[in-house]
Amino acid sequence: MSSSQSKRPAADREAEGTPFDLKGYLGQTTRLVDKALSHYLPASRIKPATIHEAMRYSLFAGGKRMRPALCLAAAASCGGSQEAALAPACALECVHTYSLIHDDLPAMDNDDLRRGRPTSHKVYGEAMAILAGDALLTIAFEILTDTRPTQRYGHAAMVRELARASGSRGMIAGQVADMEAEGNQGVSLKQLQFIHASKTAALLTASLRLGGMAANATPRQLEALTTFGYHVGLAFQVVDDILDVTQSSDQLGKTAGKDQAADKATYPALMGLDRSKRKASYLTQKAFAALGPLGKKATALHALADYLLHRLN
Amino acid sequence: MSSSQSKRPAADREAEGTPFDLKGYLGQTTRLVDKALSHYLPASRIKPATIHEAMRYSLFAGGKRMRPALCLAAAASCGGSQEAALAPACALECVHTYSLIHDDLPAMDNDDLRRGRPTSHKVYGEAMAILAGDALLTIAFEILTDTRPTQRYGHAAMVRELARASGSRGMIAGQVADMEAEGNQGVSLKQLQFIHASKTAALLTASLRLGGMAANATPRQLEALTTFGYHVGLAFQVVDDILDVTQSSDQLGKTAGKDQAADKATYPALMGLDRSKRKASYLTQKAFAALGPLGKKATALHALADYLLHRLN
Repeated sequence: MSSSQSKRPAADREAEGTPFDLKGYLGQTTRLVDKALSHYLPASRIKPATIHEAMRYSLFAGGKRMRPALCLAAAASCGGSQEAALAPACALECVHTYSLIHDDLPAMDNDDLRRGRPTSHKVYGEAMAILAGDALLTIAFEILTDTRPTQRYGHAAMVRELARASGSRGMIAGQVADMEAEGNQGVSLKQLQFIHASKTAALLTASLRLGGMAANATPRQLEALTTFGYHVGLAFQVVDDILDVTQSSDQLGKTAGKDQAADKATYPALMGLDRSKRKASYLTQKAFAALGPLGKKATALHALADYLLHRLN
Repeated sequence: MSSSQSKRPAADREAEGTPFDLKGYLGQTTRLVDKALSHYLPASRIKPATIHEAMRYSLFAGGKRMRPALCLAAAASCGGSQEAALAPACALECVHTYSLIHDDLPAMDNDDLRRGRPTSHKVYGEAMAILAGDALLTIAFEILTDTRPTQRYGHAAMVRELARASGSRGMIAGQVADMEAEGNQGVSLKQLQFIHASKTAALLTASLRLGGMAANATPRQLEALTTFGYHVGLAFQVVDDILDVTQSSDQLGKTAGKDQAADKATYPALMGLDRSKRKASYLTQKAFAALGPLGKKATALHALADYLLHRLN
């Protein structure tokens, strides 16, 4: 392959039959997003330094930037540029990071490790960890307004999308339902699905929809992204439940077996490991099918969904 | 006074020499804001019920709705209607309430009482209190987008205004600096001013500016509201410091003497009670002066600032 060819976007090459280079794609999107995040976040020297250090500590802790990647890939799938979706991609990562900081708190999951490093409250204390989460949630909305409004979607629609997905009828609803289900032997599959749809799928779907909105998606394109997001989001959480059972703390980069120890409602606990794996596979197939209307521009999205299943191998 | 006269807005009557009925004004704005807040907040029955109950518990806990009142009065001072500023007024109260819930947490100020009632974490537990705060902060931005954009100010400007004022360079900066100053004997007046300007004045100023923006304020009007807000905000915090020393828990509706017990940096601790009272008075005079360019339409704002001093009598 000549050097001029290798510089062309991975998605183009895939359209010609070359296997999609997901690792290269994730590397490129991560670099793009990390640079933008560092630009958007106040410098560590800005007073009071501790809060800005704490915000950066968790934001630059080696996260896989899956939501930003989905956001950028969704924009591409609707014919938009990565640059157009960069602000929402950064906003989504701030919301995701805030939720991890607060989830890890002693009053919540009480986790000491996250991505192989001490969690925020272990480094900065509980009060600062609470505030660092608050500050990341707050700045997410500020960053989001840096998106250029499109013909179909203004700033109000974008802010509502993010707030709905991350608020008490979205991600927070899932966290609450998850807490309330803890140790409760009578959790139904329907309740478990509510937990996962809210806790994970809501923000993943918003990641895709915000990417689409930044690319001025047609209603039909946005609908395809929504269906894709719902199924990928559920699959993602089922896979997470499975990994907690099957992998070591070293492999996970966080404490393994926590769900079981906390008697948490999970797919493996409710339907066994094998059926959980088939469920994850089924959901990903449903996700793939939803991409149909987006055509060849959805190559990166397809590869990202594929990656979610491959984590199991 | 005939019944037709008594139905005219208090601000109009004041312009004719009748004393401004602040109690009536605050009653009217509180009813208006409470009705809108109840409309914006998810009903308690919406799943998961606990989070929506917790959000409402703290939001409808008898708060004085000072920020909404300032927001509505600011809109009026720029020739706008109360209705135009109702959404930002509600958003501001959600942000204020979230900050109180998180401030009261055991890891922060560890307060058991707020407005004479048990604090959120005493009723719902720490995890739920953290999430209720998170959810109120999140919904604030959703509510804010219900503001009708004006010729000069779009949704992006409004969202940025709220995020800046409440984030790590605003209210949260003040909370962090306050925590870091605790028990530190060497806090300077400059540092204390930074704490108060960030912790209180930033959100009060945003309350006024958002009211102005919703009323399509001219740059000169917005500047007047900003100067007014900065001085009222500082005065408000100085008064709060003084009340903590001079009033009982019953009078305050929260635990009195907490600042002194925690060895907190306060104006009374740094410059004594008498000089603190003079400082509060001076700041309020500066605030009054800033209202000049707004003319007679600023009557309600004037009365609100006056009220902040009268709390001391």
